[in-house]
Amino acid sequence: LRGLILLEGPNLFSAAASAGLRFETILATEDDFDTHQRAGRLGQRVTLVSDRVLSAAADADHPRSPVASAVAPEESVPRPANTVILVGLSDPGNAGTIIRTAAAFGWDVARTPNTVDLWGPKTLRAGAGAHFSTGIWSVPDIATLGDTHTVIATLPRPHVVSPPMPGPYALLVGNEAHGLDTEVVTEAHAVLSIPMAGDAESLNAAVAAGVAMYILDQ
Amino acid sequence: LRGLILLEGPNLFSAAASAGLRFETILATEDDFDTHQRAGRLGQRVTLVSDRVLSAAADADHPRSPVASAVAPEESVPRPANTVILVGLSDPGNAGTIIRTAAAFGWDVARTPNTVDLWGPKTLRAGAGAHFSTGIWSVPDIATLGDTHTVIATLPRPHVVSPPMPGPYALLVGNEAHGLDTEVVTEAHAVLSIPMAGDAESLNAAVAAGVAMYILDQ
Repeated sequence: LRGLILLEGPNLFSAAASAGLRFETILATEDDFDTHQRAGRLGQRVTLVSDRVLSAAADADHPRSPVASAVAPEESVPRPANTVILVGLSDPGNAGTIIRTAAAFGWDVARTPNTVDLWGPKTLRAGAGAHFSTGIWSVPDIATLGDTHTVIATLPRPHVVSPPMPGPYALLVGNEAHGLDTEVVTEAHAVLSIPMAGDAESLNAAVAAGVAMYILDQ
Repeated sequence: LRGLILLEGPNLFSAAASAGLRFETILATEDDFDTHQRAGRLGQRVTLVSDRVLSAAADADHPRSPVASAVAPEESVPRPANTVILVGLSDPGNAGTIIRTAAAFGWDVARTPNTVDLWGPKTLRAGAGAHFSTGIWSVPDIATLGDTHTVIATLPRPHVVSPPMPGPYALLVGNEAHGLDTEVVTEAHAVLSIPMAGDAESLNAAVAAGVAMYILDQ
Protein backbone atom coordinates (compact mmCIF):
# COMPACT_ATOMS: atom_id res chain seq x y z
CA LEU A 1 0.00 0.00 0.00
CA ARG A 2 1.48 3.33 -1.03
CA GLY A 3 0.96 6.37 1.21
CA LEU A 4 -0.56 9.75 0.55
CA ILE A 5 1.59 12.76 -0.24
CA LEU A 6 0.85 16.39 0.61
CA LEU A 7 1.10 19.02 -2.12
CA GLU A 8 1.26 22.53 -0.68
CA GLY A 9 1.04 25.72 -2.68
CA PRO A 10 0.28 26.47 -6.34
CA ASN A 11 3.63 25.40 -7.83
CA LEU A 12 3.71 21.90 -6.33
CA PHE A 13 0.01 21.43 -7.04
CA SER A 14 0.35 22.37 -10.70
CA ALA A 15 3.53 20.28 -11.15
CA ALA A 16 1.65 17.26 -9.74
CA ALA A 17 -1.42 17.99 -11.87
CA SER A 18 0.72 18.32 -15.02
CA ALA A 19 2.29 14.95 -14.19
CA GLY A 20 -1.19 13.41 -14.21
CA LEU A 21 -1.56 12.73 -10.48
CA ARG A 22 -5.11 12.17 -9.26
CA PHE A 23 -5.83 14.14 -6.10
CA GLU A 24 -7.66 12.62 -3.16
CA THR A 25 -8.50 15.96 -1.60
CA ILE A 26 -8.00 19.54 -2.75
CA LEU A 27 -8.44 22.27 -0.15
CA ALA A 28 -8.43 25.83 -1.50
CA THR A 29 -9.42 29.27 -0.27
CA GLU A 30 -12.21 31.16 -2.00
CA ASP A 31 -9.89 33.66 -3.71
CA ASP A 32 -7.65 30.94 -5.23
CA PHE A 33 -9.19 31.22 -8.72
CA ASP A 34 -6.35 29.34 -10.46
CA THR A 35 -6.97 26.20 -8.44
CA HIS A 36 -10.75 26.33 -8.85
CA GLN A 37 -10.29 26.69 -12.61
CA ARG A 38 -7.64 23.99 -12.86
CA ALA A 39 -9.62 21.50 -10.74
CA GLY A 40 -12.69 22.22 -12.87
CA ARG A 41 -10.77 21.29 -16.04
CA LEU A 42 -9.54 18.11 -14.32
CA GLY A 43 -13.07 17.26 -13.15
CA GLN A 44 -11.89 17.21 -9.52
CA ARG A 45 -13.87 18.56 -6.59
CA VAL A 46 -12.41 21.36 -4.46
CA THR A 47 -13.26 21.82 -0.80
CA LEU A 48 -13.57 25.50 0.06
CA VAL A 49 -11.71 26.30 3.31
CA SER A 50 -10.71 29.30 5.41
CA ASP A 51 -7.06 30.35 5.81
CA ARG A 52 -7.20 28.81 9.27
CA VAL A 53 -8.29 25.38 8.05
CA LEU A 54 -5.72 25.56 5.23
CA SER A 55 -2.98 26.23 7.82
CA ALA A 56 -4.19 23.38 10.01
CA ALA A 57 -4.12 20.92 7.10
CA ALA A 58 -0.69 22.03 5.85
CA ASP A 59 2.77 21.16 7.11
CA ALA A 60 4.28 24.55 6.17
CA ASP A 61 4.02 27.40 8.69
CA HIS A 62 2.59 29.83 6.13
CA PRO A 63 0.98 27.69 3.41
CA ARG A 64 -0.38 29.15 0.19
CA SER A 65 -3.60 27.73 -1.28
CA PRO A 66 -4.16 24.97 -2.38
CA VAL A 67 -3.24 22.10 -0.08
CA ALA A 68 -3.93 18.78 -1.78
CA SER A 69 -3.34 15.12 -1.07
CA ALA A 70 -2.66 12.39 -3.62
CA VAL A 71 -1.46 8.79 -3.72
CA ALA A 72 2.35 8.80 -4.10
CA PRO A 73 3.47 8.01 -7.66
CA GLU A 74 4.89 4.56 -8.42
CA GLU A 75 8.62 4.35 -7.80
CA SER A 76 10.71 4.67 -10.98
CA VAL A 77 12.53 1.67 -12.38
CA PRO A 78 16.32 1.82 -11.77
CA ARG A 79 18.15 2.59 -15.02
CA PRO A 80 21.74 3.06 -16.14
CA ALA A 81 21.61 6.87 -16.13
CA ASN A 82 23.52 9.36 -14.00
CA THR A 83 22.03 9.09 -10.50
CA VAL A 84 22.63 10.74 -7.12
CA ILE A 85 22.46 8.11 -4.40
CA LEU A 86 21.36 9.51 -1.02
CA VAL A 87 23.13 7.33 1.54
CA GLY A 88 21.65 7.97 4.99
CA LEU A 89 20.78 11.62 4.33
CA SER A 90 18.63 12.88 7.23
CA ASP A 91 17.53 16.42 6.37
CA PRO A 92 14.34 16.57 4.26
CA GLY A 93 15.22 20.06 2.96
CA ASN A 94 18.58 18.83 1.66
CA ALA A 95 16.95 15.77 0.06
CA GLY A 96 14.39 17.95 -1.74
CA THR A 97 17.03 20.44 -2.87
CA ILE A 98 19.11 17.57 -4.30
CA ILE A 99 16.04 16.27 -6.19
CA ARG A 100 15.55 19.78 -7.60
CA THR A 101 19.21 20.00 -8.69
CA ALA A 102 19.15 16.49 -10.16
CA ALA A 103 16.09 17.34 -12.28
CA ALA A 104 17.78 20.54 -13.49
CA PHE A 105 20.91 18.59 -14.49
CA GLY A 106 19.01 15.61 -15.96
CA TRP A 107 20.02 13.14 -13.23
CA ASP A 108 17.94 10.52 -11.41
CA VAL A 109 17.82 10.27 -7.59
CA ALA A 110 17.84 7.11 -5.50
CA ARG A 111 17.86 6.51 -1.75
CA THR A 112 19.15 3.84 0.60
CA PRO A 113 16.72 2.50 3.24
CA ASN A 114 18.26 4.66 6.03
CA THR A 115 17.65 7.92 4.13
CA VAL A 116 14.81 10.31 4.97
CA ASP A 117 11.47 9.81 3.14
CA LEU A 118 11.75 11.52 -0.27
CA TRP A 119 7.99 12.12 -0.43
CA GLY A 120 7.49 13.91 2.90
CA PRO A 121 6.04 17.44 2.86
CA LYS A 122 9.34 19.29 3.54
CA THR A 123 11.15 17.29 0.85
CA LEU A 124 8.36 17.97 -1.63
CA ARG A 125 8.45 21.71 -0.87
CA ALA A 126 12.24 21.89 -1.29
CA GLY A 127 11.92 19.88 -4.51
CA ALA A 128 9.76 22.66 -5.98
CA GLY A 129 7.95 20.26 -8.33
CA ALA A 130 11.08 18.39 -9.51
CA HIS A 131 9.77 15.16 -7.94
CA PHE A 132 7.47 14.86 -10.96
CA SER A 133 10.11 15.41 -13.65
CA THR A 134 12.91 13.04 -12.64
CA GLY A 135 13.34 9.33 -11.86
CA ILE A 136 13.22 8.55 -8.12
CA TRP A 137 14.05 5.01 -7.05
CA SER A 138 15.42 2.88 -4.18
CA VAL A 139 18.77 1.15 -3.67
CA PRO A 140 18.43 -1.76 -1.26
CA ASP A 141 22.17 -2.49 -1.50
CA ILE A 142 25.01 -0.18 -2.62
CA ALA A 143 27.09 -3.20 -3.72
CA THR A 144 24.73 -3.95 -6.65
CA LEU A 145 25.16 -0.45 -8.17
CA GLY A 146 28.58 -1.35 -9.59
CA ASP A 147 26.97 -3.67 -12.17
CA THR A 148 25.30 -0.77 -13.98
CA HIS A 149 27.06 2.40 -12.83
CA THR A 150 30.49 3.86 -12.17
CA VAL A 151 30.16 4.40 -8.41
CA ILE A 152 31.69 7.66 -7.13
CA ALA A 153 31.99 8.54 -3.43
CA THR A 154 31.93 12.25 -2.53
CA LEU A 155 34.36 12.88 0.33
CA PRO A 156 35.30 16.19 1.97
CA ARG A 157 39.06 15.66 1.62
CA PRO A 158 41.02 14.20 -1.30
CA HIS A 159 42.32 10.98 0.21
CA VAL A 160 42.54 9.51 -3.25
CA VAL A 161 42.64 11.37 -6.52
CA SER A 162 40.81 9.22 -9.03
CA PRO A 163 41.28 9.23 -12.80
CA PRO A 164 38.30 10.30 -14.93
CA MET A 165 35.99 7.33 -15.56
CA PRO A 166 33.12 6.84 -18.02
CA GLY A 167 29.49 7.13 -16.89
CA PRO A 168 26.72 6.56 -16.12
CA TYR A 169 27.63 7.63 -12.60
CA ALA A 170 26.13 6.66 -9.26
CA LEU A 171 27.22 9.58 -7.08
CA LEU A 172 27.14 8.63 -3.38
CA VAL A 173 26.24 11.50 -1.02
CA GLY A 174 26.44 10.77 2.69
CA ASN A 175 24.77 11.86 5.92
CA GLU A 176 25.03 15.56 6.88
CA ALA A 177 26.86 14.91 10.16
CA HIS A 178 28.71 11.64 9.57
CA GLY A 179 29.34 11.53 5.81
CA LEU A 180 29.79 8.15 4.11
CA ASP A 181 30.72 5.03 6.10
CA THR A 182 34.04 3.41 5.26
CA GLU A 183 32.27 0.23 4.10
CA VAL A 184 30.26 2.30 1.62
CA VAL A 185 33.37 4.08 0.32
CA THR A 186 35.08 0.74 -0.36
CA GLU A 187 32.20 -0.11 -2.76
CA ALA A 188 33.06 2.94 -4.90
CA HIS A 189 35.16 2.86 -8.07
CA ALA A 190 36.35 6.42 -7.56
CA VAL A 191 36.40 9.30 -5.10
CA LEU A 192 35.44 12.90 -5.82
CA SER A 193 36.49 15.70 -3.46
CA ILE A 194 35.51 19.32 -4.04
CA PRO A 195 38.53 21.59 -3.46
CA MET A 196 38.11 23.84 -0.40
CA ALA A 197 39.99 26.83 0.95
CA GLY A 198 40.53 25.81 4.58
CA ASP A 199 40.76 22.57 6.51
CA ALA A 200 38.02 23.55 8.93
CA GLU A 201 35.48 24.32 6.23
CA SER A 202 32.76 22.06 4.88
CA LEU A 203 29.93 22.26 2.38
CA ASN A 204 26.21 21.76 2.91
CA ALA A 205 25.22 18.31 1.53
CA ALA A 206 22.93 19.75 -1.16
CA VAL A 207 25.57 22.24 -2.35
CA ALA A 208 28.24 19.50 -2.41
CA ALA A 209 25.92 17.25 -4.43
CA GLY A 210 25.16 20.09 -6.86
CA VAL A 211 28.80 20.98 -7.47
CA ALA A 212 29.71 17.26 -7.83
CA MET A 213 26.96 16.67 -10.42
CA TYR A 214 28.16 19.75 -12.31
CA ILE A 215 31.77 18.46 -12.27
CA LEU A 216 30.77 15.01 -13.55
CA ASP A 217 28.64 16.57 -16.31
CA GLN A 218 31.69 18.41 -17.77
CA LEU B 1 24.40 50.15 18.18
CA ARG B 2 25.04 46.60 17.01
CA GLY B 3 22.56 43.90 17.96
CA LEU B 4 22.98 40.63 19.79
CA ILE B 5 23.34 37.37 17.90
CA LEU B 6 22.20 33.92 19.04
CA LEU B 7 24.66 31.02 18.92
CA GLU B 8 22.89 27.67 19.17
CA GLY B 9 24.59 24.32 19.58
CA PRO B 10 28.18 23.29 20.23
CA ASN B 11 29.54 23.90 16.71
CA LEU B 12 28.39 27.50 16.36
CA PHE B 13 29.38 28.23 19.96
CA SER B 14 32.89 26.92 19.50
CA ALA B 15 33.35 28.65 16.12
CA ALA B 16 32.35 31.94 17.77
CA ALA B 17 34.60 31.30 20.78
CA SER B 18 37.55 30.46 18.52
CA ALA B 19 36.94 33.73 16.67
CA GLY B 20 37.33 35.58 19.99
CA LEU B 21 33.70 36.66 20.49
CA ARG B 22 32.77 37.67 24.02
CA PHE B 23 29.49 36.10 25.11
CA GLU B 24 26.85 38.08 26.93
CA THR B 25 25.02 34.99 28.18
CA ILE B 26 25.81 31.27 27.97
CA LEU B 27 22.99 28.87 28.80
CA ALA B 28 23.99 25.21 29.09
CA THR B 29 22.51 22.01 30.45
CA GLU B 30 24.23 20.23 33.32
CA ASP B 31 25.54 17.37 31.16
CA ASP B 32 27.17 19.69 28.58
CA PHE B 33 30.70 19.21 29.96
CA ASP B 34 32.44 20.64 26.87
CA THR B 35 30.76 24.02 27.29
CA HIS B 36 31.40 24.19 31.03
CA GLN B 37 35.07 23.42 30.38
CA ARG B 38 35.40 25.83 27.47
CA ALA B 39 33.66 28.68 29.33
CA GLY B 40 35.91 28.04 32.33
CA ARG B 41 38.99 28.45 30.16
CA LEU B 42 37.54 31.69 28.72
CA GLY B 43 36.67 32.96 32.21
CA GLN B 44 33.00 33.26 31.24
CA ARG B 45 30.08 32.42 33.49
CA VAL B 46 27.61 29.70 32.42
CA THR B 47 23.97 29.70 33.52
CA LEU B 48 22.79 26.16 34.22
CA VAL B 49 19.38 25.52 32.62
CA SER B 50 16.93 22.68 32.05
CA ASP B 51 16.21 21.34 28.54
CA ARG B 52 12.92 23.22 28.71
CA VAL B 53 14.53 26.59 29.40
CA LEU B 54 17.15 25.91 26.72
CA SER B 55 14.35 25.25 24.20
CA ALA B 56 12.52 28.41 25.24
CA ALA B 57 15.64 30.54 24.78
CA ALA B 58 16.55 29.00 21.42
CA ASP B 59 15.18 29.68 17.96
CA ALA B 60 15.69 26.08 16.75
CA ASP B 61 12.94 23.54 17.40
CA HIS B 62 15.34 21.01 18.92
CA PRO B 63 18.34 22.99 20.19
CA ARG B 64 21.49 21.35 21.50
CA SER B 65 23.29 22.88 24.47
CA PRO B 66 24.66 25.58 24.72
CA VAL B 67 22.60 28.57 23.62
CA ALA B 68 24.65 31.75 23.91
CA SER B 69 24.25 35.41 23.00
CA ALA B 70 27.00 37.79 21.92
CA VAL B 71 27.38 41.23 20.35
CA ALA B 72 27.51 40.83 16.55
CA PRO B 73 31.04 41.16 15.16
CA GLU B 74 32.02 44.38 13.35
CA GLU B 75 31.19 44.29 9.67
CA SER B 76 34.20 43.46 7.45
CA VAL B 77 35.77 46.13 5.27
CA PRO B 78 34.91 45.66 1.56
CA ARG B 79 37.94 44.42 -0.36
CA PRO B 80 38.80 43.51 -3.95
CA ALA B 81 38.43 39.74 -3.43
CA ASN B 82 35.94 37.30 -4.97
CA THR B 83 32.60 38.06 -3.33
CA VAL B 84 29.04 36.71 -3.57
CA ILE B 85 26.60 39.60 -3.51
CA LEU B 86 23.18 38.66 -2.11
CA VAL B 87 20.72 40.91 -3.94
CA GLY B 88 17.34 40.76 -2.23
CA LEU B 89 17.69 37.16 -1.02
CA SER B 90 14.84 36.40 1.39
CA ASP B 91 15.43 32.90 2.79
CA PRO B 92 17.70 32.85 5.86
CA GLY B 93 18.62 29.19 5.26
CA ASN B 94 19.80 29.95 1.74
CA ALA B 95 21.78 32.98 2.96
CA GLY B 96 23.53 30.88 5.63
CA THR B 97 24.24 28.06 3.19
CA ILE B 98 25.82 30.56 0.76
CA ILE B 99 28.00 31.94 3.57
CA ARG B 100 29.10 28.36 4.34
CA THR B 101 29.94 27.70 0.67
CA ALA B 102 31.74 31.04 0.31
CA ALA B 103 33.95 30.28 3.32
CA ALA B 104 34.76 26.82 1.90
CA PHE B 105 35.74 28.35 -1.45
CA GLY B 106 37.58 31.34 0.04
CA TRP B 107 35.04 33.96 -1.06
CA ASP B 108 33.61 36.95 0.84
CA VAL B 109 29.85 37.58 1.14
CA ALA B 110 28.07 40.92 0.91
CA ARG B 111 24.41 41.89 1.03
CA THR B 112 22.24 44.64 -0.39
CA PRO B 113 19.90 46.46 2.04
CA ASN B 114 16.82 44.47 0.87
CA THR B 115 18.44 41.10 1.70
CA VAL B 116 17.56 39.07 4.80
CA ASP B 117 19.64 39.71 7.97
CA LEU B 118 22.84 37.65 7.69
CA TRP B 119 23.18 37.39 11.47
CA GLY B 120 19.74 36.01 12.33
CA PRO B 121 19.53 32.62 14.12
CA LYS B 122 18.47 30.56 11.06
CA THR B 123 21.22 32.10 8.91
CA LEU B 124 23.79 31.44 11.62
CA ARG B 125 22.68 27.80 11.94
CA ALA B 126 22.83 27.23 8.16
CA GLY B 127 26.25 28.93 8.12
CA ALA B 128 27.58 26.21 10.48
CA GLY B 129 30.27 28.53 11.90
CA ALA B 130 31.41 29.97 8.54
CA HIS B 131 30.24 33.47 9.58
CA PHE B 132 33.41 33.66 11.68
CA SER B 133 35.87 32.60 8.97
CA THR B 134 34.92 34.80 6.02
CA GLY B 135 34.46 38.50 5.26
CA ILE B 136 30.83 39.67 5.51
CA TRP B 137 30.05 43.20 4.38
CA SER B 138 27.31 45.46 2.96
CA VAL B 139 26.77 46.92 -0.51
CA PRO B 140 24.67 50.09 -0.33
CA ASP B 141 24.73 50.43 -4.14
CA ILE B 142 25.46 47.77 -6.79
CA ALA B 143 26.70 50.46 -9.21
CA THR B 144 29.83 51.11 -7.10
CA LEU B 145 30.99 47.45 -7.27
CA GLY B 146 32.25 47.88 -10.82
CA ASP B 147 35.14 50.08 -9.60
CA THR B 148 36.77 47.19 -7.74
CA HIS B 149 35.22 43.97 -9.12
CA THR B 150 34.20 42.26 -12.35
CA VAL B 151 30.45 42.14 -11.75
CA ILE B 152 28.77 38.90 -12.88
CA ALA B 153 25.00 38.37 -12.89
CA THR B 154 23.75 34.79 -12.41
CA LEU B 155 20.70 34.22 -14.61
CA PRO B 156 18.71 31.02 -15.13
CA ARG B 157 18.88 31.17 -18.95
CA PRO B 158 21.80 32.15 -21.19
CA HIS B 159 20.50 35.37 -22.75
CA VAL B 160 24.07 36.46 -23.29
CA VAL B 161 27.14 34.28 -23.37
CA SER B 162 29.95 36.31 -21.89
CA PRO B 163 33.65 35.88 -22.56
CA PRO B 164 35.86 34.88 -19.63
CA MET B 165 36.91 37.95 -17.63
CA PRO B 166 39.58 38.49 -14.96
CA GLY B 167 38.63 38.65 -11.26
CA PRO B 168 38.11 39.55 -8.54
CA TYR B 169 34.46 38.77 -9.15
CA ALA B 170 31.34 40.19 -7.57
CA LEU B 171 28.81 37.43 -8.24
CA LEU B 172 25.23 38.74 -8.06
CA VAL B 173 22.68 36.22 -6.75
CA GLY B 174 19.04 37.31 -6.80
CA ASN B 175 15.83 36.71 -4.88
CA GLU B 176 14.52 33.11 -4.72
CA ALA B 177 11.20 33.92 -6.43
CA HIS B 178 11.99 36.92 -8.63
CA GLY B 179 15.68 36.60 -9.48
CA LEU B 180 17.68 39.72 -10.34
CA ASP B 181 15.93 42.92 -11.47
CA THR B 182 16.71 44.13 -14.99
CA GLU B 183 18.27 47.33 -13.60
CA VAL B 184 20.66 45.23 -11.53
CA VAL B 185 21.61 43.03 -14.50
CA THR B 186 22.48 46.13 -16.57
CA GLU B 187 25.13 46.99 -13.95
CA ALA B 188 26.91 43.67 -14.60
CA HIS B 189 29.95 43.24 -16.86
CA ALA B 190 29.02 39.65 -17.66
CA VAL B 191 26.31 37.03 -17.29
CA LEU B 192 26.74 33.48 -16.00
CA SER B 193 24.08 30.84 -16.65
CA ILE B 194 24.36 27.29 -15.33
CA PRO B 195 23.36 24.82 -18.07
CA MET B 196 20.14 22.94 -17.25
CA ALA B 197 18.39 19.93 -18.76
CA GLY B 198 14.85 21.25 -19.21
CA ASP B 199 13.22 24.65 -19.65
CA ALA B 200 10.89 24.16 -16.71
CA GLU B 201 13.67 23.35 -14.26
CA SER B 202 15.40 25.72 -11.85
CA LEU B 203 18.05 25.56 -9.14
CA ASN B 204 17.80 26.45 -5.48
CA ALA B 205 19.55 29.83 -4.92
CA ALA B 206 22.24 28.36 -2.64
CA VAL B 207 23.02 25.52 -5.08
CA ALA B 208 23.17 27.97 -8.01
CA ALA B 209 25.54 30.22 -6.05
CA GLY B 210 27.73 27.23 -5.12
CA VAL B 211 28.04 25.95 -8.69
CA ALA B 212 28.68 29.50 -9.98
CA MET B 213 31.48 30.07 -7.44
CA TYR B 214 32.99 26.73 -8.43
CA ILE B 215 32.85 27.66 -12.15
CA LEU B 216 34.51 31.05 -11.57
CA ASP B 217 37.25 29.43 -9.45
CA GLN B 218 38.32 27.19 -12.36
